[in-house]
Amino acid sequence: MGKHFKEAFKKISEEKQTRILDAATAEFAAKGFPGANINRIAQKAGISIGAMYNYFGSKDDLILTIVDRAHALLEGVINEVAQAEDDIFDSIEKLLRAAQSYSKQYPELTQIYLDMTSEGLSHLSRQLSGQMETISSRLYRVLIEKAAATGQVASGVDIRVASFCLDNLIMMLQYSYASDYFKERMKIFIGPEAARDDERIIQEMMRFIRGAFRGGQ
Amino acid sequence: MGKHFKEAFKKISEEKQTRILDAATAEFAAKGFPGANINRIAQKAGISIGAMYNYFGSKDDLILTIVDRAHALLEGVINEVAQAEDDIFDSIEKLLRAAQSYSKQYPELTQIYLDMTSEGLSHLSRQLSGQMETISSRLYRVLIEKAAATGQVASGVDIRVASFCLDNLIMMLQYSYASDYFKERMKIFIGPEAARDDERIIQEMMRFIRGAFRGGQ
Repeated sequence: MGKHFKEAFKKISEEKQTRILDAATAEFAAKGFPGANINRIAQKAGISIGAMYNYFGSKDDLILTIVDRAHALLEGVINEVAQAEDDIFDSIEKLLRAAQSYSKQYPELTQIYLDMTSEGLSHLSRQLSGQMETISSRLYRVLIEKAAATGQVASGVDIRVASFCLDNLIMMLQYSYASDYFKERMKIFIGPEAARDDERIIQEMMRFIRGAFRGGQ
Repeated sequence: MGKHFKEAFKKISEEKQTRILDAATAEFAAKGFPGANINRIAQKAGISIGAMYNYFGSKDDLILTIVDRAHALLEGVINEVAQAEDDIFDSIEKLLRAAQSYSKQYPELTQIYLDMTSEGLSHLSRQLSGQMETISSRLYRVLIEKAAATGQVASGVDIRVASFCLDNLIMMLQYSYASDYFKERMKIFIGPEAARDDERIIQEMMRFIRGAFRGGQ
């Protein structure tokens, strides 16, 4: 993980670092990367534009620093799940719950992640070299291989495509709490009351996923 | 579906309409909505900026017209599937194949769809009032209800959450051919050779989905 901030940023207090990154997160999430204004971010964070450029060389570096922070958070969750000696379905349930609560707690970070996947920001996402995806795909593969060895997962299941499908479900669950479009979409699909019932969504998604891994026979 | 173009646009030749919308599609997909420049679109389409504003009141209206065209294409596919008297899994396989080939054929339209789901464009997506999502969620519900009645789908399956999961898998498959980020992610998950094997992806996703609907017992 390359660092995208300058030395001067490391030297200021953690409180000030957080204030700057929080202001930037709010701006990027609301306006999108091209619409975000670095002067406005500095103003909201209560620092001068000169200080801002002392900490970050560019708008690119600022958003990449935010993405790095978000990745570190998610990596923590994934490592916790990987280290627990759980049944595969308990592990998957923990991941679903983490995706749901992370996205509800940090909708702006999820919005930024969603933006990073767009073609317009591919000059930025190229610099991430798939770190997050590599970490999560590896975790899923290990989980599924272990479970396949003990017969918890049907023998015909293609481990790599199954982990892809699993991550697709987890990502879309995250998105579903992050943008107006996806929130509205979830309501259309599962109904407005059910969409508010976090626990039910987890339980019914787990039923779907359990069936998928057990192979339908 | 409200129309977002002016009368004058309807009066020009279909060839000219397509030329303008294709130029706009390329620009929106590559630059994102905030970065797209309407002057550049007019220039690429070989029309004056005055003519452009004679056809579309704003950049908003131009992208909404493109989204309407894309919806009409997708609606055609969905109606075809809905009208065929297929087994549920044949229908789902047709939908997966359609998502894959649509996204490979029109990656730019998928990129624009991806952008429309972002929070930065919620002022635009609000004007779509979930048309596409309403149409597809209704189709899936009908398919699953019919299949549940004939015992093809396990009795415990929650029809609405299952249709949500199904659409999540279909959407992510579409995204996976549309932006550099998602293309790279698919390679990481399923491997670079397998990611080129369209047929295998469909078959293995179908195995996952069949298991999910049959309920794992």
